[in-house]
Amino acid sequence: MWDVLFTNVHLATMADGYGEIRDAAIAVKDGRIAWLGPQAELPSMQAVTVHDGGGSWLTPGLIDCHTHIVHAGNRSDEFEARLNGATYEDIARAGGGIMSTVRATRAASEDELLRQSLPRVLSLLAEGVTTIEIKSGYGLTLESEAAMLRAARRIGRELPVRVATTFLGAHALPPEFAGRADDYIEEVCQMIAPLAAEGLADAVDVFCERIGFSYEQTERVFKAAQAYGLPVKLHAEQLSDQRGAELTARYQGLSADHLEHLSASGIEAMAAAGTVAVLLPGAYYFLRDTTPPPVAALREAGVKMAVATDCNPGTSPMTSLLLAMNMACTLWRLTPQEALAGCTLHAARALGLHDEIGSLEVGKRADFALWRIARPADLSYAIGLNPCRGVVNAGKLRSPAM
Amino acid sequence: MWDVLFTNVHLATMADGYGEIRDAAIAVKDGRIAWLGPQAELPSMQAVTVHDGGGSWLTPGLIDCHTHIVHAGNRSDEFEARLNGATYEDIARAGGGIMSTVRATRAASEDELLRQSLPRVLSLLAEGVTTIEIKSGYGLTLESEAAMLRAARRIGRELPVRVATTFLGAHALPPEFAGRADDYIEEVCQMIAPLAAEGLADAVDVFCERIGFSYEQTERVFKAAQAYGLPVKLHAEQLSDQRGAELTARYQGLSADHLEHLSASGIEAMAAAGTVAVLLPGAYYFLRDTTPPPVAALREAGVKMAVATDCNPGTSPMTSLLLAMNMACTLWRLTPQEALAGCTLHAARALGLHDEIGSLEVGKRADFALWRIARPADLSYAIGLNPCRGVVNAGKLRSPAM
Ligand SMILES: [Zn+2]
Ligand SMILES: [Zn+2]
Repeated sequence: MWDVLFTNVHLATMADGYGEIRDAAIAVKDGRIAWLGPQAELPSMQAVTVHDGGGSWLTPGLIDCHTHIVHAGNRSDEFEARLNGATYEDIARAGGGIMSTVRATRAASEDELLRQSLPRVLSLLAEGVTTIEIKSGYGLTLESEAAMLRAARRIGRELPVRVATTFLGAHALPPEFAGRADDYIEEVCQMIAPLAAEGLADAVDVFCERIGFSYEQTERVFKAAQAYGLPVKLHAEQLSDQRGAELTARYQGLSADHLEHLSASGIEAMAAAGTVAVLLPGAYYFLRDTTPPPVAALREAGVKMAVATDCNPGTSPMTSLLLAMNMACTLWRLTPQEALAGCTLHAARALGLHDEIGSLEVGKRADFALWRIARPADLSYAIGLNPCRGVVNAGKLRSPAM
Repeated sequence: MWDVLFTNVHLATMADGYGEIRDAAIAVKDGRIAWLGPQAELPSMQAVTVHDGGGSWLTPGLIDCHTHIVHAGNRSDEFEARLNGATYEDIARAGGGIMSTVRATRAASEDELLRQSLPRVLSLLAEGVTTIEIKSGYGLTLESEAAMLRAARRIGRELPVRVATTFLGAHALPPEFAGRADDYIEEVCQMIAPLAAEGLADAVDVFCERIGFSYEQTERVFKAAQAYGLPVKLHAEQLSDQRGAELTARYQGLSADHLEHLSASGIEAMAAAGTVAVLLPGAYYFLRDTTPPPVAALREAGVKMAVATDCNPGTSPMTSLLLAMNMACTLWRLTPQEALAGCTLHAARALGLHDEIGSLEVGKRADFALWRIARPADLSYAIGLNPCRGVVNAGKLRSPAM
């Protein structure tokens, strides 16, 4: 006896990156996929609940594998000031930039962080997202980083979404450490033990960049993470080539993210290590960047590409993963299949969860999205349309707008 | 006695292009604005219904003043084919491009056109849009153009939205007129009388371009329109300078739209005639165009700028006006105030409806949007977030998702 059976659907299985089964059915037992295939081959097994999909497409629930969605305040004031002629220097002098988000986030309680983050999270969930990665990185003290990560964990408990947390203490240098970046990195390494002990971090990330932290500082954080058994990932090669992708590959990192300035040797190292390339077109768009990541070379080398929103108040205030898919196709020429794999199977791999979620395969968690579309490419093609008609978390159907 | 009173709101009045009143109230009588001002100055007048805005911002209902939202089919198959390496020639040879939409639209009944267009229209309405312009232009026969315009009129009757229709028979040369563009233009001119008699067209538009119709052909259509008292507008200077904006200004056109290749003399002519510049960033984004319209020069010359989705299946499959606002700011450096004026007051002017809608002023129609935002710039800043918490059509409040 199955718990739930969805009939009259078309499946985009995404097993091995794609795969379609038209006129299909999919069954759930104990929150996991128990059977899927052409409806004509459906075994004569009963189910407690049967949902008629009405000809919808059913995909794995979408996975946003790179967000900074927990934070306080926004930066629309800077956006407006810049468009009215203010320079970056003007804004920095007025206390703007990332430090304004750090101040707001430090001042916010965990409850307040949750309250302010909810509309953003709900915007993602309405589009069939069932798993979100959430980074810390606006607290920059143990206490405030922990508050961000606790708020992230609460999102996973209080809403129908799975949350993977990432500790990004090495996101920016807090003002109290001005001129003492190495001391701050030592502090960050010290934070890992208590955060790991509380189970607050599923991975550790660093912003490796001229305006962030160096290769050497990044490696210190990676070593500390590995000492606690935490996998690493990296904000790498966004504005310049820091050889961050190679470093990440050397530490068997889950993913290297951004990658606009990735070198051929970086690609080679990622391919060898199986490190996922997480592409973040929202920041590229919002910053009017003109150097795309080397998509053709990544494809050629067999590096798996994920696509995420990078939802953050400074460089990508984006809360639509479907739009990130469209941008990846429009701006960077991913195919619609690659974009969908990038928000399902390969996004799961970027979180180390590819044995659990990201494709429709027997034994995987029954996280699905149901779509009123004619074909899967419609998801990447439309701009600003949400054709999601149902979301399924571990076998439980909900409406997209909760 | 007022019919409706909204208290505890902040108003972005948009009168003369902007204007804020914080801690305000706004009253409605017979579907029109009867009073607005600081809540502290509220007269001791009763209202049948009082809505507490809970500190929301209240703006004029948004106006999408350039869409091709009524059509059958989509072109995700071409989008996918191109991203998989097909050339434009491959696609044309396979019967793709605009003619595939013409075939699908001609084959669709008025009911079917309505049914297929509804999800797109609802997507706009969920974001606080209360007026939509809808063009014909995929029928290219009197019968099929009329069916498109009747479907557009039905949208205005069956949904809480005001619809302005535009006859765009001169959108593309139908295959049965291959090599006989002048004959087709004569046919288009002949269509105007019956469409005007049935009250199906509020304005007349032409696609003036090397790959569309010439300056001279455009002028013939403009003359025919004016013979029936219909105002004109133009798809002008999108891919090349055809002096279309000057022509439009000479015919006191409501708007010239696209304008990426607009010349200085075109700007001067538009400024003198009061012709609105309708900016369409969705098509620029989707086509990866690199020549922006001359925003700074338009601003300098005092030409009023509107912003619209250009929703169409070939070059801008976009159904989010908020996203068009973000693109106008991000890609073309409009200020958030300009973007909001471009989707309210100046969009109303592009439809000749600026005495009726587009700003919060006593006597104007009570079409509002209510927003859960900290400041109006948030509407242009966020990417893919819908903070609309209520929509008001002629004084009647509805939830954004119907
Ligand atoms: Zn990031
Ligand atoms: Zn158009």
